[in-house]
Amino acid sequence: MKLQQIIKNNRLGLLFQQGTFGIEKESQRVHQDGSVVTTAHPKAFGNRSFHPYIQTDFAESQLELITPPNKTLEDTMRWLQTIHEVVLRSLPGDEYIFPMSMPAGLPPENEIKVAQLDNPEDVAYREHLVESYGAYKQMVSGIHYNFQFSPELIDTLFAAQNEYQSAVEFQNALYLKLAKNFLRYQWVLLYLLAATPTVDANYFKDGSPLKPNQYVRSLRSSQYGYVNAPEIKVSFDSIPQYVETLEHWVNSGKLIAEKEFYSNVRLRGAKKAREFLETGIQYLEFRLFDLNPFEPNGIALDDAKFIHYFIMLMIWIDETADGDGVEIGKARLAEVAWEDPRQPTQYAIEGEMLLSEMINMLEMIGAGESAVEIAEDKLAMFAEPQLTLGARVVDEIEKAGGYQAFGANLARVYKQNALDTFYMLTAFNNMELSTQALMFDVIQKGLKMEILDENDQFLRLQFGDHVEYVKNGNMTSYDSYISPLIMENKVVTKKVLAEAGFNVPQSREFTSLEQAVANYALFEGKAVVIKPKSTNFGLGITIFQQGVTNREDFAKAVEIAFREDKEIMVEDYLVGTEYRFFVLGDQTLAVLLRVPANVTGDGKSTVAELVAAKNAHPLRGDGSRTPLKKIALGDIEQLQLKEQGLTVDSVPADGQLVQLRANSNISTGGDSIDMTDEMHDSYKQLAVGITKAMGAAVCGVDLIIPDLKKPAENSLSSWGVIEANFNPMMMMHIFPYAGKSRRLTLDVVKMLFPELPV
Amino acid sequence: MKLQQIIKNNRLGLLFQQGTFGIEKESQRVHQDGSVVTTAHPKAFGNRSFHPYIQTDFAESQLELITPPNKTLEDTMRWLQTIHEVVLRSLPGDEYIFPMSMPAGLPPENEIKVAQLDNPEDVAYREHLVESYGAYKQMVSGIHYNFQFSPELIDTLFAAQNEYQSAVEFQNALYLKLAKNFLRYQWVLLYLLAATPTVDANYFKDGSPLKPNQYVRSLRSSQYGYVNAPEIKVSFDSIPQYVETLEHWVNSGKLIAEKEFYSNVRLRGAKKAREFLETGIQYLEFRLFDLNPFEPNGIALDDAKFIHYFIMLMIWIDETADGDGVEIGKARLAEVAWEDPRQPTQYAIEGEMLLSEMINMLEMIGAGESAVEIAEDKLAMFAEPQLTLGARVVDEIEKAGGYQAFGANLARVYKQNALDTFYMLTAFNNMELSTQALMFDVIQKGLKMEILDENDQFLRLQFGDHVEYVKNGNMTSYDSYISPLIMENKVVTKKVLAEAGFNVPQSREFTSLEQAVANYALFEGKAVVIKPKSTNFGLGITIFQQGVTNREDFAKAVEIAFREDKEIMVEDYLVGTEYRFFVLGDQTLAVLLRVPANVTGDGKSTVAELVAAKNAHPLRGDGSRTPLKKIALGDIEQLQLKEQGLTVDSVPADGQLVQLRANSNISTGGDSIDMTDEMHDSYKQLAVGITKAMGAAVCGVDLIIPDLKKPAENSLSSWGVIEANFNPMMMMHIFPYAGKSRRLTLDVVKMLFPELPV
Repeated sequence: MKLQQIIKNNRLGLLFQQGTFGIEKESQRVHQDGSVVTTAHPKAFGNRSFHPYIQTDFAESQLELITPPNKTLEDTMRWLQTIHEVVLRSLPGDEYIFPMSMPAGLPPENEIKVAQLDNPEDVAYREHLVESYGAYKQMVSGIHYNFQFSPELIDTLFAAQNEYQSAVEFQNALYLKLAKNFLRYQWVLLYLLAATPTVDANYFKDGSPLKPNQYVRSLRSSQYGYVNAPEIKVSFDSIPQYVETLEHWVNSGKLIAEKEFYSNVRLRGAKKAREFLETGIQYLEFRLFDLNPFEPNGIALDDAKFIHYFIMLMIWIDETADGDGVEIGKARLAEVAWEDPRQPTQYAIEGEMLLSEMINMLEMIGAGESAVEIAEDKLAMFAEPQLTLGARVVDEIEKAGGYQAFGANLARVYKQNALDTFYMLTAFNNMELSTQALMFDVIQKGLKMEILDENDQFLRLQFGDHVEYVKNGNMTSYDSYISPLIMENKVVTKKVLAEAGFNVPQSREFTSLEQAVANYALFEGKAVVIKPKSTNFGLGITIFQQGVTNREDFAKAVEIAFREDKEIMVEDYLVGTEYRFFVLGDQTLAVLLRVPANVTGDGKSTVAELVAAKNAHPLRGDGSRTPLKKIALGDIEQLQLKEQGLTVDSVPADGQLVQLRANSNISTGGDSIDMTDEMHDSYKQLAVGITKAMGAAVCGVDLIIPDLKKPAENSLSSWGVIEANFNPMMMMHIFPYAGKSRRLTLDVVKMLFPELPV
Repeated sequence: MKLQQIIKNNRLGLLFQQGTFGIEKESQRVHQDGSVVTTAHPKAFGNRSFHPYIQTDFAESQLELITPPNKTLEDTMRWLQTIHEVVLRSLPGDEYIFPMSMPAGLPPENEIKVAQLDNPEDVAYREHLVESYGAYKQMVSGIHYNFQFSPELIDTLFAAQNEYQSAVEFQNALYLKLAKNFLRYQWVLLYLLAATPTVDANYFKDGSPLKPNQYVRSLRSSQYGYVNAPEIKVSFDSIPQYVETLEHWVNSGKLIAEKEFYSNVRLRGAKKAREFLETGIQYLEFRLFDLNPFEPNGIALDDAKFIHYFIMLMIWIDETADGDGVEIGKARLAEVAWEDPRQPTQYAIEGEMLLSEMINMLEMIGAGESAVEIAEDKLAMFAEPQLTLGARVVDEIEKAGGYQAFGANLARVYKQNALDTFYMLTAFNNMELSTQALMFDVIQKGLKMEILDENDQFLRLQFGDHVEYVKNGNMTSYDSYISPLIMENKVVTKKVLAEAGFNVPQSREFTSLEQAVANYALFEGKAVVIKPKSTNFGLGITIFQQGVTNREDFAKAVEIAFREDKEIMVEDYLVGTEYRFFVLGDQTLAVLLRVPANVTGDGKSTVAELVAAKNAHPLRGDGSRTPLKKIALGDIEQLQLKEQGLTVDSVPADGQLVQLRANSNISTGGDSIDMTDEMHDSYKQLAVGITKAMGAAVCGVDLIIPDLKKPAENSLSSWGVIEANFNPMMMMHIFPYAGKSRRLTLDVVKMLFPELPV
């Protein structure tokens, strides 16, 4: 099967680089000192009978984190990082993720609990593994790398070749070529990426096979790692032979099931090998890789890319390893695994030749400079073994004073990093914070998620056959289309609310300055707000809190409102405090008070210093990707200071409240304060009623209330509704400046999937 | 009860002018010659047991058109005009609306069928009227004018006076003052607005009381009109006296029910007069007015305004007529009714004094110049009786050669006018055509409708307790919020449709020119469309119908697309014709072919002449308020001509098709051709399935189909879906250039109110 020429002739370089990538990563939950915990899999991670991302491998302590398949490695790595952040932030305070493949600080074997899965067969299989291999060997962790070529590539190659008549046979041959060549040359990847040079002595029941101060490249890939008995040999020459030999070992009882065959390459896409005869191999799983402790997620993006280039190379080269070649490859793997990682490998020349060919391939297919650079960096490591991952790990183990200590140090750093950015998903921080929070909950609880459009915050969620779409965190099928259209239009909103009997400030609309001013008599002496019909930024609004007393002031305010819209409204002004009620279904889930930007004096610091100190709060940033915004000290703030007889250099008295803004928007540095528990229930019920009148499932209701402790009465002096908002903000409730956090995104998940066990 | 001073002192001039106005207008359905029909009330007008706008009065032939209450007379008149347009366009081809109060060409009395209402009591009441008055008298028609002062005014006046302790008593006294003063001075309105100077002789069983060539001001308001027996006198001095006297006549059997009391002022707001003691009079109904034949709707806006000023004047003047005053007023009414309309009235001095006081009032309350002008015009009519409506009607009757002929001529003109603008509601032509069409259907079938926001095309519809909101003709609660959000995003739409198994052209998105060009190899040789991710105007789109063959052309097209959006798409180009499927629920209701702007030669006319001829089509206009758009002859059209070797001055051969545009948009002069019956059912089913996949209730699906007669197959060469649109256009289906009209708005009504009997 020679494909290089076909790829060249048909200019398939780009298609050849397309593929689907998925990563599974095992690791141990550990204590602060790096020793493996004996606690149960955390309940926060929902139910393992369906969880697509967070599973347990062999043991209850052994997390298995699984990315969905992605078209790019970048996306796969973003998923991997995200799942890590979800897990690290959900673990108990005293638990961490161990960053290396070989477990350290193992408890006595009888205290290791196999994963307590719902299916009794799954538990029984693990108990069998304990019997066959001992529990410790099963505790070894690693990275499994799943790869599928673009089906379009396979179709195109099949059409361009004339060796195979059947598409399925061609596809099987293609993937088998990849599998065999991979097994033949896998030692190259081991040399470059192995990272299990040692382990603490208690890992070995019968004493360590390592001499004092001996390091190897990979204990995990050596005979002391996680391998089948040496006699278990399965042929990759063809699918019929593969099926025959694999079924032989199962039928003879040497393997309890096909999945007990631990090859570094697994054929995937069917439950039983025999099915490949009909359906073809769908993708391959490469299981060779040690965790890279320098990477919080266990694997570096450049290394993942290098593995992809290596996979392509195994197809690009004209040779296809035969059975003997595979055996040679497996033998070399064992030899290279046992080499000193700080020394050159005995097979360096073969490695260098292979990587030179890889560079040649990358240039031919137009993979770009950065790809060539990655390959060149790896090529250089044959001459300089101290650059290999294994050698670097040895250095750090020695510096840290031991394997477990090195791992524990890194585990604490990685967890702290995840906690520091608790309000976001670092890899998806281009998306809105509320969507990030929802994604966190979705990943934690185990709904299948597809990001349909990142820029548009569009998600597809699935549980079983039940599919829901979500845009902007809470726009879903649970709302009817007419609800946001009503809420978008303030006039219509007021009419609908008034008709339903809620306290709505009276208002009149005008389409010309003249018309508004002619109606001045209707408003004289009344407290009114004059505002454009449509604006969400507070522009063009004038408030006559004490009542409008002359026609000229009124006309001026009308004129200002007309600058923003071609229709304006004059409405009753309500005295009291504005609260935002977040309603979902039949319940007010959160009540928030928004306070204009402010600082409190300490008798020593200047206003500028107080602002700087307040701005240091971790939640404050530019406001687009942080829950709160830094207080500015621009013209508006300085004018506000001036009205209080202050400048930025004034030193306010201890306890003196200094206003920096008149408006309470969070987007201009305001504080968000949760008042859910303080608010009298009668107002919460009103907000629910208002939401129902809007026909909405999710609604942000703004009420003006003079006294939140007094029960609501049926009069505008007791309360009034000033706005109902669709797609209401959630971040300010989830991460308020003060008061209790309300995890509204989880309520959205529960609304969408009431059947989900959480 | 003196209110003038209170209004002045409290500057209530504007509030005094506020009110609520409703008009009921009776008229006879007639034949082309003006003779009254004997056909049943048309089934098109739905069910009279609930219809709020289109009822029958006494006889089956006697339409009663009812506007809802409005805050301005302008809106009331818009409603009245609209209901007329609905009725005129729904009548059988040979039926018209007679524009005058006295019926002409009456059938024999025994052929007049009383209104066949569902409630047997209503029918029995009418049969009683026939017995008491004869059927002919009941056939007389007129305008009833309903008026309510602003409740805010009444509250303010009540607070400012000290004559009444109870708000209900004050309100009753206010409306009774209005009623009594109206009855005292109503002759003034009769003098100015009466329009029943004569009638054909057969109206009178015992011969006409009119001498040859005698005309009077108002037969309808004379003893020969529609009046109670002379002894039926009811006191308006107070509500208790009103109740006592009215109940006396009912109890004594002189009246069969309170509603048989035909005063020119009726107290309204309760089923029985006795209830006014508790609830107060809510509004008054003034029943004095003859139909104005010069007005298609029976009343002129300026006259309606004048009546309003007259009503205000009846409150403004300090006097309140007593029982004797009311009797004087009724006597004068009878006298003035019998005067020659071309002669001055004997009471001219009283009339002029009253109108001078009205002008004084209008100036005091700031009603504006136009109001004063209306009053001045009427004032002048006391000196010049030939300007009165009655005198003008006499002139026209003489010109037409008879009463019936005059009425029949106008009836035909008014109907033709309504038919000429069949695609719109003239009074609401500021709104979208599709919303106008929906409003037409809603009014025809008798749903209660409130226009919540005209600019926003926002309607509130109600049947019984069932309320639905509609925006832009078909945006309703029947669609879920996520559906339009999915359809708004082409990428998400394609993903969802592909996942559901529909034939979707493959496409790739790019965010940079470089990235797109680097992937050129994927597209080489393929027929592709390159377009911005979001655009609805066809901008930035390039099509390589024969396949893209070089990188430079590809790069140029990509660059053009990036001018319109920051993301672009490259997708498969489908060969075939694009059809728009309009789907509602489980059914494809319409299929439309859009053909680029074109003309067909006749061997004689130039292109410019052919275009002018085609543009003369009644449906073609500027496109914003017409179903089709005129073909332009701008740069693009001339370029298109040039490609065919033509200019605007060329004379195409007979039958030669001349393309004026490449794109098929209706908005650039394209033709809309209904293909619903031609399209193979399998494609209609596909469109329904696509709609369901979008989760939508109403959807416009664009399919590309090479052969609409061949059943759909599961391949892109048989069909492909290129777009799914929320809030799809309806006008092009309702009023296509060619083919059958599909009344989709009626289907929307049926969807919203499946319980509505239509």
